[in-house]
Amino acid sequence: MRLIVGVDLGGTTIVVGTLTEDGERMHGLLTEETPVHLGPEGVVDRMVAMIHRSIDQTRHEYGSTAVEIAGVGVGAPGPLDTERGIVIIAPNLGWHDMPLRDRIGAATGLDATLDNDANCATLGEWWRGAAAGGKVVVGFTIGTGIGGGIVLDGKVFHGASDVAGEFGHMTIDLTGRKCKCGNYGCVEAYASGTAIAARTIEELEAGTPSSIPSLVGGDVTKVTAQIVYQAAADGDLLALEIVRDTVRFLGAGIANIVNILNPEVVVITGGVTKAGDRLFGPLRTEVARRAFKPAVSACRIVPGALPGTAGVYGAVASYKVQRWGSA
Amino acid sequence: MRLIVGVDLGGTTIVVGTLTEDGERMHGLLTEETPVHLGPEGVVDRMVAMIHRSIDQTRHEYGSTAVEIAGVGVGAPGPLDTERGIVIIAPNLGWHDMPLRDRIGAATGLDATLDNDANCATLGEWWRGAAAGGKVVVGFTIGTGIGGGIVLDGKVFHGASDVAGEFGHMTIDLTGRKCKCGNYGCVEAYASGTAIAARTIEELEAGTPSSIPSLVGGDVTKVTAQIVYQAAADGDLLALEIVRDTVRFLGAGIANIVNILNPEVVVITGGVTKAGDRLFGPLRTEVARRAFKPAVSACRIVPGALPGTAGVYGAVASYKVQRWGSA
Repeated sequence: MRLIVGVDLGGTTIVVGTLTEDGERMHGLLTEETPVHLGPEGVVDRMVAMIHRSIDQTRHEYGSTAVEIAGVGVGAPGPLDTERGIVIIAPNLGWHDMPLRDRIGAATGLDATLDNDANCATLGEWWRGAAAGGKVVVGFTIGTGIGGGIVLDGKVFHGASDVAGEFGHMTIDLTGRKCKCGNYGCVEAYASGTAIAARTIEELEAGTPSSIPSLVGGDVTKVTAQIVYQAAADGDLLALEIVRDTVRFLGAGIANIVNILNPEVVVITGGVTKAGDRLFGPLRTEVARRAFKPAVSACRIVPGALPGTAGVYGAVASYKVQRWGSA
Repeated sequence: MRLIVGVDLGGTTIVVGTLTEDGERMHGLLTEETPVHLGPEGVVDRMVAMIHRSIDQTRHEYGSTAVEIAGVGVGAPGPLDTERGIVIIAPNLGWHDMPLRDRIGAATGLDATLDNDANCATLGEWWRGAAAGGKVVVGFTIGTGIGGGIVLDGKVFHGASDVAGEFGHMTIDLTGRKCKCGNYGCVEAYASGTAIAARTIEELEAGTPSSIPSLVGGDVTKVTAQIVYQAAADGDLLALEIVRDTVRFLGAGIANIVNILNPEVVVITGGVTKAGDRLFGPLRTEVARRAFKPAVSACRIVPGALPGTAGVYGAVASYKVQRWGSA
């Protein structure tokens, strides 16, 4: 039995799992906090320990059946140099020019590959999730920020220098909100979890009446996107307006991608998918209102089917593409 | 000697040329007005007559050397169904579901292919123009409207339903100007030739002082983008402001594509390229201000090198890709 380990390194958590090479079964799924405070070495040590533990659990589950670990695929925040296996900058980790692939390879004795985390989430959904088999697949990963990935014929499209798929930093309002990236009016500056919270806090501080403060014990700095969605479900008018605006911002961004790339599937991953049809219904309507009909009718907009593990599936699929030519 | 005929069908002109299969030499280059008023049959008749004439001129130039015409590649406004060779809708021509490829094939006795005009312009620039050899090339065709094309590894990327590359209908201002496509705040609604004229006329009608009316004999309905660029070159303050704004709008759109597709080359074709460095200098600055550094530094933004014939080169290259697998 040949298996591949997948690692999804995030700014908050590390997720590791060991997959059969066909992606049918996952073993030894582990999730731990990313020990950012321990620096690059501490984070790598944690990843390596989790990889070993996941493999041990897998071997244990197979009992006497021989288990061969082909390698380990790693997904990490970028920008990256995929070919050289280097994390160029990862602001949430405080990393610069970190040769992550070779560190993991050397420490585990396994053949390792590296790819961008949002690319991996999209590739995972293409391989074993909601976008299975699509020829032109794009993914939006919505969390603290907004990442993106483009998968063409089952392979991540990296562009000329590994930057392709930065959907979060698409301008939808050219004189709009300043984004962390330095640009103005990026989708991420409106529709990321962080931005949803920030827009809500601004409204609350301006005195807009709402039940939201009561949900955070009066401390509006504790407002999160999750709390806004919860208040919207309870009928809070401010929360409903924030969600409606989020749909407009995100819908404009997705409509752009639909007109530019004409995908078969737009798969949305991340915490925001928990909002379910309350989000996806209006979102599809907004995209249909903005994008070209023949592009809209060729496209499904769906939540990811692998919550919490798309990145692991994708890291394994990326390993297969990089080493064997296809997943 | 084996040659291929290229046809670039536009709403205003038809351009035909006959190329050696390596694209080194063009023969029998002809440009005529598109007789839209004669309906589809009249336009096809004109195209066929021009194809015959171009081939005759080519044979004449080769004299006694045997000339084999392999086929004819046609570029036409879309949306198209490339595979079935049909123009689905072409508003400027008033066409619906026109089986253009097979009409041209039947009338000329030549093997014909069809592709979108903006795709062809981009592919032509990749094959024999300013984007030669780039692995990830995008084209903006700026004229009456704004078209786009994506060329990956020397092949047009069509997306799931032949719509990919509609850069003109990318939202950059989600509550902005209404676009002909029904959406709001599209790049085309600001930066196309038509939009540049419309924005100028609005300012003139609002009483903004300018030398532009004197350039059109006082009839502001005669203002064109070309006249605005000319007035800007002469130092007219309104014209300079319009050009500056155009750079901002177009720059935001190009920056989006740079972040999304991370191209090696952005090639801009169409009449707007005549504005030269007065446009391209500020445009590169605006893109650099908005897009990710590693994407900006991997990317050249250049005017097309095949003014008036990029579509013909691209129609031939598209023929080669469709029939022989590569240009």
